[in-house]
Amino acid sequence: MTAEKTPDLSRDGKQIRASVLHGAKDLRIENRLLFPPGSSELQVSVRATGLCGSDLHYYRHYRNGDIIVREPMSLGHESAGVVVAVGSEAKNFKVGDKVALEVGQPCEQCERCKEGRYNICKEMKFRSSAKAFPHAQGTLQDRINHPAAWCHRLPDDVSLDLGALLEPLGVGIQASKRAQLRVGSTVLVFGAGAVGLLVAAMAKISGASNVLIADIDEGRVNFAVENHFAHRGFTVPLKRGSTIEENLEIAKETAAAIGKTAKVSGGPVGEVDAVFECTGVPSCVQASIYATRPGGKVLLIGMGTPVQTLPISAAALREVDIMGVFRYANTYPTGVEVVSRKGPDYPDFSKLVTHRYQGLEAAEEAFEMAGKTKDDKGNLVIKVVLETGEGEKANP
Amino acid sequence: MTAEKTPDLSRDGKQIRASVLHGAKDLRIENRLLFPPGSSELQVSVRATGLCGSDLHYYRHYRNGDIIVREPMSLGHESAGVVVAVGSEAKNFKVGDKVALEVGQPCEQCERCKEGRYNICKEMKFRSSAKAFPHAQGTLQDRINHPAAWCHRLPDDVSLDLGALLEPLGVGIQASKRAQLRVGSTVLVFGAGAVGLLVAAMAKISGASNVLIADIDEGRVNFAVENHFAHRGFTVPLKRGSTIEENLEIAKETAAAIGKTAKVSGGPVGEVDAVFECTGVPSCVQASIYATRPGGKVLLIGMGTPVQTLPISAAALREVDIMGVFRYANTYPTGVEVVSRKGPDYPDFSKLVTHRYQGLEAAEEAFEMAGKTKDDKGNLVIKVVLETGEGEKANP
Amino acid sequence: MTAEKTPDLSRDGKQIRASVLHGAKDLRIENRLLFPPGSSELQVSVRATGLCGSDLHYYRHYRNGDIIVREPMSLGHESAGVVVAVGSEAKNFKVGDKVALEVGQPCEQCERCKEGRYNICKEMKFRSSAKAFPHAQGTLQDRINHPAAWCHRLPDDVSLDLGALLEPLGVGIQASKRAQLRVGSTVLVFGAGAVGLLVAAMAKISGASNVLIADIDEGRVNFAVENHFAHRGFTVPLKRGSTIEENLEIAKETAAAIGKTAKVSGGPVGEVDAVFECTGVPSCVQASIYATRPGGKVLLIGMGTPVQTLPISAAALREVDIMGVFRYANTYPTGVEVVSRKGPDYPDFSKLVTHRYQGLEAAEEAFEMAGKTKDDKGNLVIKVVLETGEGEKANP
Amino acid sequence: MTAEKTPDLSRDGKQIRASVLHGAKDLRIENRLLFPPGSSELQVSVRATGLCGSDLHYYRHYRNGDIIVREPMSLGHESAGVVVAVGSEAKNFKVGDKVALEVGQPCEQCERCKEGRYNICKEMKFRSSAKAFPHAQGTLQDRINHPAAWCHRLPDDVSLDLGALLEPLGVGIQASKRAQLRVGSTVLVFGAGAVGLLVAAMAKISGASNVLIADIDEGRVNFAVENHFAHRGFTVPLKRGSTIEENLEIAKETAAAIGKTAKVSGGPVGEVDAVFECTGVPSCVQASIYATRPGGKVLLIGMGTPVQTLPISAAALREVDIMGVFRYANTYPTGVEVVSRKGPDYPDFSKLVTHRYQGLEAAEEAFEMAGKTKDDKGNLVIKVVLETGEGEKANP
Repeated sequence: MTAEKTPDLSRDGKQIRASVLHGAKDLRIENRLLFPPGSSELQVSVRATGLCGSDLHYYRHYRNGDIIVREPMSLGHESAGVVVAVGSEAKNFKVGDKVALEVGQPCEQCERCKEGRYNICKEMKFRSSAKAFPHAQGTLQDRINHPAAWCHRLPDDVSLDLGALLEPLGVGIQASKRAQLRVGSTVLVFGAGAVGLLVAAMAKISGASNVLIADIDEGRVNFAVENHFAHRGFTVPLKRGSTIEENLEIAKETAAAIGKTAKVSGGPVGEVDAVFECTGVPSCVQASIYATRPGGKVLLIGMGTPVQTLPISAAALREVDIMGVFRYANTYPTGVEVVSRKGPDYPDFSKLVTHRYQGLEAAEEAFEMAGKTKDDKGNLVIKVVLETGEGEKANP
Repeated sequence: MTAEKTPDLSRDGKQIRASVLHGAKDLRIENRLLFPPGSSELQVSVRATGLCGSDLHYYRHYRNGDIIVREPMSLGHESAGVVVAVGSEAKNFKVGDKVALEVGQPCEQCERCKEGRYNICKEMKFRSSAKAFPHAQGTLQDRINHPAAWCHRLPDDVSLDLGALLEPLGVGIQASKRAQLRVGSTVLVFGAGAVGLLVAAMAKISGASNVLIADIDEGRVNFAVENHFAHRGFTVPLKRGSTIEENLEIAKETAAAIGKTAKVSGGPVGEVDAVFECTGVPSCVQASIYATRPGGKVLLIGMGTPVQTLPISAAALREVDIMGVFRYANTYPTGVEVVSRKGPDYPDFSKLVTHRYQGLEAAEEAFEMAGKTKDDKGNLVIKVVLETGEGEKANP
Repeated sequence: MTAEKTPDLSRDGKQIRASVLHGAKDLRIENRLLFPPGSSELQVSVRATGLCGSDLHYYRHYRNGDIIVREPMSLGHESAGVVVAVGSEAKNFKVGDKVALEVGQPCEQCERCKEGRYNICKEMKFRSSAKAFPHAQGTLQDRINHPAAWCHRLPDDVSLDLGALLEPLGVGIQASKRAQLRVGSTVLVFGAGAVGLLVAAMAKISGASNVLIADIDEGRVNFAVENHFAHRGFTVPLKRGSTIEENLEIAKETAAAIGKTAKVSGGPVGEVDAVFECTGVPSCVQASIYATRPGGKVLLIGMGTPVQTLPISAAALREVDIMGVFRYANTYPTGVEVVSRKGPDYPDFSKLVTHRYQGLEAAEEAFEMAGKTKDDKGNLVIKVVLETGEGEKANP
Repeated sequence: MTAEKTPDLSRDGKQIRASVLHGAKDLRIENRLLFPPGSSELQVSVRATGLCGSDLHYYRHYRNGDIIVREPMSLGHESAGVVVAVGSEAKNFKVGDKVALEVGQPCEQCERCKEGRYNICKEMKFRSSAKAFPHAQGTLQDRINHPAAWCHRLPDDVSLDLGALLEPLGVGIQASKRAQLRVGSTVLVFGAGAVGLLVAAMAKISGASNVLIADIDEGRVNFAVENHFAHRGFTVPLKRGSTIEENLEIAKETAAAIGKTAKVSGGPVGEVDAVFECTGVPSCVQASIYATRPGGKVLLIGMGTPVQTLPISAAALREVDIMGVFRYANTYPTGVEVVSRKGPDYPDFSKLVTHRYQGLEAAEEAFEMAGKTKDDKGNLVIKVVLETGEGEKANP
């Protein structure tokens, strides 16, 4: 334990700019003082930040569900950038390295952390989340200091956009890991948004031979299949009954239709081994339970209605496990491998970034686009990326 | 594959008596013709049958939830007896052996069966359940033929009562196996009926160092602790709100109270790793979710309200898995080991049989007692056993 | 349990031809009487049988290691065919169905069978193995009766050659399952024979992003990579020292060379998570241990020297687990899915069948070829298939 | 990241005494300067240190196998003590707390650390091991500074001797965790030294219903059974053949004898599910493989002959997994629970400490005793504890 020299603020600090949220839809560009990185930290010039649903909630409402923002906060947590300064003990990095940022900093001391499930650490400080106080500031800044242990070097041929995608891809990897998918599995994904697509892609890459994706929007379903995120897809009509009984009946019918679709396969598979629920909508959760074979798993990934009425016996009596997926742990090295690969049948991850904006000043415009499902030309909006950083392009 | 000789019915058959349910509370003693055991079967003189909640439902309503009885059916599936005839290929048994009967006969051909999860086989034929048709007849008969592969020999010093208990004990073993309990765990069991007690006992035997049991009845809680089924217990008041929000609030308070109790331990444990829910009551399921630590498990064991309103995000966002326990698979050999042991701190399984009746004729009386929580003298009713079989006592 | 009618041998039996081994290299075509299938059996016209190393041992030596043939025995256990008769209770099949045969018949009663690990059942009767007595006769016959539960229907567009390949593919699936491979893993396979190739393919399909294959023969290594069974390969020179110390040193050097190769990857991966040892050669097993990262696994697949001198501390002190793979359990449904798929980067399983022979009479010729590593034209010999059965071609 | 004030060595440092090894059997009491604890550290007055086999090797040879001491080093790593100063950020502790020290400090950054298997971190710095350089100094000092994250508070009623025992107990917990023992298992432990006894105890506490222990010394076997560390024990004669074949034959016979013993149980158990090998002796490892049932596990715990000749096919062909146990990860909280419990049939952990010495000056004497199997009075030597620390007794 060696003591560090106290930085001379007036001399060592550097002015950087940050996009800071002060209230609903009140984003301001502000100057912040950034010190040199600590001994175990890197200083990273943030180049690409994907906008996530939670960011969007904060942007729109200055809150996210029950969590209320209590002090001005930078948004952004799906980020990659370039190392611009290296702490004295961060030996594995050098200036110029491309890195993806794993932005959650767990306590590293509790039982969950020590057993490798740091994603559910109670003391987690996650950038651009207002849960902990003071809030861990998000990445929509010119530069940030971040622990080297939570930076992941990217190969040269992986773009920073893809680096930023490693964050939501982590959810897909976590989902596949939790599902303990076996080769040859049949899998159903509800919801073909960015997370649903990444979840489907990871199921496919993990060896599921039959990945179905369902969404209410035909365009998203087609996108999923055409770009090799899923083997097959289908659109689910938006029906809703007026009683819980009617709704459960509708859910059962949806599940039955899925079962029939699953059986079209040439092989012996006709049952869904795991459903990845990425919408959070009760009717989809209900259908997920009915659609899963005995002994299968329902993975709850979509953040949705917090209290739901579910056909719980239909799960319990068939040992269908209902498992949550909360963020991710230990997924970045895998993610780097995953986005490094390419092939004719391989999911084309680069297609997920449908819209790009340049500069912190464009944050507002980017958030407005992230809030839409289609842009003015009718193109799908899947992932909006804000490219920033000292005049260099994120995707050279 | 050698062909068997066709039995000569008039010559080889034997008249036995059975207690047969013909309608709600309409039990009749009838004669049945029993043939010699098939080549891979044993003929077993049934000596002890525990009465289960599902039997009681059939007895009272001629149905069990959605499942309606469609032909006269013998009840009983928690049974042990003595081998009286051995099929030609059932080499590991001899006349006089004491055996516990595993009464579910799965198809042995589907993927679930082949992978060892035969309890969720869709073609399961389970004695005294009206789900399959023709119904698999229950064990309340003088004798039955049963596949030797599903008979489990009992050591001489294990009573037939304990043999009968292996069936509900299987649920406890299945629950511990599914929970993948680790040594030193803190565990909470909701419900101190027969199943809850067996579940608690198995958690304790599996190495949980802190087994809490909760019930609305103080007597049951005391019974659990005094007879070493659980380390500590507490009574839960029966409160119920008028809205779901109020109920969830009550569930949260219950969970918080449990958390405080769990913390009393001298050791570092202050969180519940797994909750075994044995009541099926929504308020308990809700409290189970709140009471479980991040990354823990809620095991749904009690057959209860089939559709429930649950704080599902409180589970998903903390990766608290909700897992059903449906009967059991591969638990009997373990169960025999478990009931063979004894010790000053060891659960006293023999205490669970609180009431015994003799002879098929006493079935009605036994069912009436099984439907009570306390007998006329104020003693707890936990497990009622019907002892039958040709004049020999089950518990010599 | 209904009794079956005794078949009238003189009336119901049918003469079929079998290739029967009577001694080392003494194969004879003989007539056998085949009865109609039992109630739970299918009668299958065998169309394609791959020749396996164990068959070859029996053919050459009338023994396989310690196991000595004790009565004339048909060889062959990698087989597929067409259903020609259906037992009365084998409801899921019809005449004309293409089926792959899972030729091991476990007892279905022991703990291993009931828990789904029937491959290590002590009472296993495996066709063309002389371990059990009477020997379970192999599939080199015109027709055989086989339990429907152990027949697996093939989709129309899967050839019977591929159906036969499901047997050795099962070993590859078993290996991946036992290794619990995670997406993004780096994997090394020693040996690029049929089994090594199938093992590598399954690792790749299971999501390993870095599958290396090593062999002493450059041609095999190239075959593996060109046909998408592995991502990269390299040839290992055959060096051998005169002392165990020298050999261990050589093994360490081999492992170090592999480590360097593994590090070439663009991504962060530089360690081997699992080694699949398919040669059985001590020097490869030693190198496997050294090559595996702490916490990784060595899977022993190749049948080799039964007693070996190993650097056991190098495994134990790094928690490198040494796990055997013996045949397979529950792999056929997965295998059907696997061989049903195709794609530009997907392993081309059809390429594995390098040599085909027609008719039982060609068995001897086929075995001679199976004993070579290259044919007279210098082409690799990987899998030799004997196509049989009543004038129909196996691969239409 | 706030910078710390540089401590003023002349003012803040404190002289403490340490027992330092300068060569084989060359222990010297020396003064060392100890600074106040760092912000995340505790300063602990060491009170009880168990002497371990590796310490003994260093003491005798100034090396441990291949690992050679390169600078003077304090020994001791099984330790507990009392907190005497608390770093500013170590909020969960206060002066006077009793703590057990987990003395290995992993890097906390590599994949192994992040996934919870920090025991196999390549950068591990483990006190009193000379593997890393500079060596991590052992605990035979008056006081040490240690990261609060690696200190585990002990309940008031747990003695510091038991606190020191948590270190070797961690190996027992790790062994049971790696074995994934199921309730009702039959387990065999080779070696009834301190580690073997703790391993056996943990198997028993984890629910194994049949824990056998084998040793060449009858006294140790009796100790194990009398103090409830194992259910049954037997002495193994020390036979050794002159060839590997003879030795394997002896190993087979030993295994067969064990099998027979295992069958004595009243229950159905007659096979050994897992063998915990705690001797490192090749003949025992060989017998372990033979003694384990198909699908079972051999856990290698004893540090022994690094290169061994093993009947590897006898393991592989029966899918008997050979798994190392190297130290422990995440075992201390469990260990605290385990030693907090007491009961008539419960292992009496306090009995393991057979010899106690007071003061750093007694280190040499203590090591000499630790090197014996029996003391001069014929009493077993199991665990020797050196009690130290400013005049206070370790076991008040």
